[in-house]
Amino acid sequence: MNVADPAVTRAPGDVEPLIRLASADMAKVDALIVERMQSPVSVIPALAEHLIAAGGKRLRPLLTVAAARLAGAKDDAACKLAAAVEFIHTATLLHDDVVDGSSMRRGKVAAHLIWGAPSSVLVGDFLFSRAFELMVETESLRALAILSRASSVISEGEVLQLMRAHDLHLSQDVYLEIIRGKTAELFAAAAESGAVVAGGSKEDVEALRTYGLSLGLAFQLVDDALDYSGSSDVLGKNTGDDFREGKATLPLLLAVARTRGKEDGFWERVMTRPGEQSESDFRRAREIVVGSGALKATLDLAGDYADAAKAALDRFPGGDWRDALEQLADFAVSRPA
Amino acid sequence: MNVADPAVTRAPGDVEPLIRLASADMAKVDALIVERMQSPVSVIPALAEHLIAAGGKRLRPLLTVAAARLAGAKDDAACKLAAAVEFIHTATLLHDDVVDGSSMRRGKVAAHLIWGAPSSVLVGDFLFSRAFELMVETESLRALAILSRASSVISEGEVLQLMRAHDLHLSQDVYLEIIRGKTAELFAAAAESGAVVAGGSKEDVEALRTYGLSLGLAFQLVDDALDYSGSSDVLGKNTGDDFREGKATLPLLLAVARTRGKEDGFWERVMTRPGEQSESDFRRAREIVVGSGALKATLDLAGDYADAAKAALDRFPGGDWRDALEQLADFAVSRPA
Repeated sequence: MNVADPAVTRAPGDVEPLIRLASADMAKVDALIVERMQSPVSVIPALAEHLIAAGGKRLRPLLTVAAARLAGAKDDAACKLAAAVEFIHTATLLHDDVVDGSSMRRGKVAAHLIWGAPSSVLVGDFLFSRAFELMVETESLRALAILSRASSVISEGEVLQLMRAHDLHLSQDVYLEIIRGKTAELFAAAAESGAVVAGGSKEDVEALRTYGLSLGLAFQLVDDALDYSGSSDVLGKNTGDDFREGKATLPLLLAVARTRGKEDGFWERVMTRPGEQSESDFRRAREIVVGSGALKATLDLAGDYADAAKAALDRFPGGDWRDALEQLADFAVSRPA
Repeated sequence: MNVADPAVTRAPGDVEPLIRLASADMAKVDALIVERMQSPVSVIPALAEHLIAAGGKRLRPLLTVAAARLAGAKDDAACKLAAAVEFIHTATLLHDDVVDGSSMRRGKVAAHLIWGAPSSVLVGDFLFSRAFELMVETESLRALAILSRASSVISEGEVLQLMRAHDLHLSQDVYLEIIRGKTAELFAAAAESGAVVAGGSKEDVEALRTYGLSLGLAFQLVDDALDYSGSSDVLGKNTGDDFREGKATLPLLLAVARTRGKEDGFWERVMTRPGEQSESDFRRAREIVVGSGALKATLDLAGDYADAAKAALDRFPGGDWRDALEQLADFAVSRPA
């Protein structure tokens, strides 16, 4: 099922040019990640490696090193910051999976199901602390300020989501506030802090923050859309997870609003008592999300943010790094559905 | 039951002189704590206040401001650091109670039983992040390095405890490593970082770190002893909690070692299947812990650390702050049993 392929109307984008361009920096970042997740308490590196070795695209640290390079970095000072950003991200994933009771992450069984929730909570705390140790080593108080503030905002976004996650009548504004907090703020801080340690101008730093924030919003909107259209293989998590958890994401919120007076009973039943859903409930929800245009509207909004991300790069002279970040923005909204 | 009252052989000590002396600084610390735990996401301040308003003696931030004053602080720069220290401590309490499934904290129902474990995990993350924001505002990279390293060590101590908590044959060295990590390291870092922001000499900073570390070890040893001799009212948690959780603390480890060949079957049964304990099991364990001298040996060791804490203060000229910290060390090992 591939009902609203944004590739039809947009450049497909690609993350590979950025990965190639950043490969030397990212080799240093990866080495730092492995080095700094070590501990004589053996369950710590075991649990951390389970998640970190599973990969993912390392988008956030990529953003940090790319922003640093675009802002004129002449050395690899951003690498420690990039490793710290990945540790913050990994810590939030470990805690999120405990909070949500998720069973899969990056195509593998979630860590808390192997080592238990207590270990996941504590190893998350450890990685978070190690992130700050790395940041301190950069000796950039501005970068520390940006990333510690981002961490607070992430927690606020997560708590807000927890409180309002099952609210069928959540406004689009509150939904956007949630995904800004839980996802986009770290993208923004990753890019902003990279530009800061590179000694970028105030305007360059601001532009890269805007790029990161817009990219993060686009990225999360597409993630939420893929839950109603993607396949498990691509996402590394199960399609329909959000629905089965009763999580009110934008595709669902728009579908609820667009079928008001017609499907109220269905939505009420499946979202307020998600434990009682049947298999056919998700198929029906998906049909409504697609048929009502809610999925396309979500992807269109993601496309707007991707355009805003690219526009923020206008002030930089053309070149490989800018091209690669533009392609990343297109990629964010054209991931295989 | 008050079988091994250390007050018989030691000066009783008192925390009140320090509390009086630090009252102006601590009023600023308290104001900062209230100000910085705020969030538009209302469950965050509600949950944080539940724990923070319940009080406790604020020993760790007291240590920070006292160390700063003893090291010659002329202003209140340590107050932000002290508030950060209390936030780190509060965050670890929230996570610990989730990890241990504890039902009481500071004489109140544990937060996770009111707001749920997910909220406790996320609000802990929030307070931890806010701690780093406060530290960044002090603009002291050294203080940031000390406290971020301490946070890593705390997590390592907690994980180590989780792995080895039920090991009846844990060595005293590993037990001390656990309590150094989970408790003493934050006491040490609280004092050390206070001395650092006050501009203390290398030797003064080192001495105050030693004071904090020794005090923390004494404090935790007494806490573990009180679990076999105190009353719930005094501790704000239930006597016998450690035993019922099957947690191998020093009083128990020493009792097991001292009754080898005689009580092995009893210890094996109650510690490896703590869920099957009866009420009389705790009474019997307490009798053995007391009768074997294990309780007294634990309190004696705590006394040694309290003496080491006081000795570390020798290099400072006499005066109110030094007196108050000496009395705190005595207090740590003479809390009502």
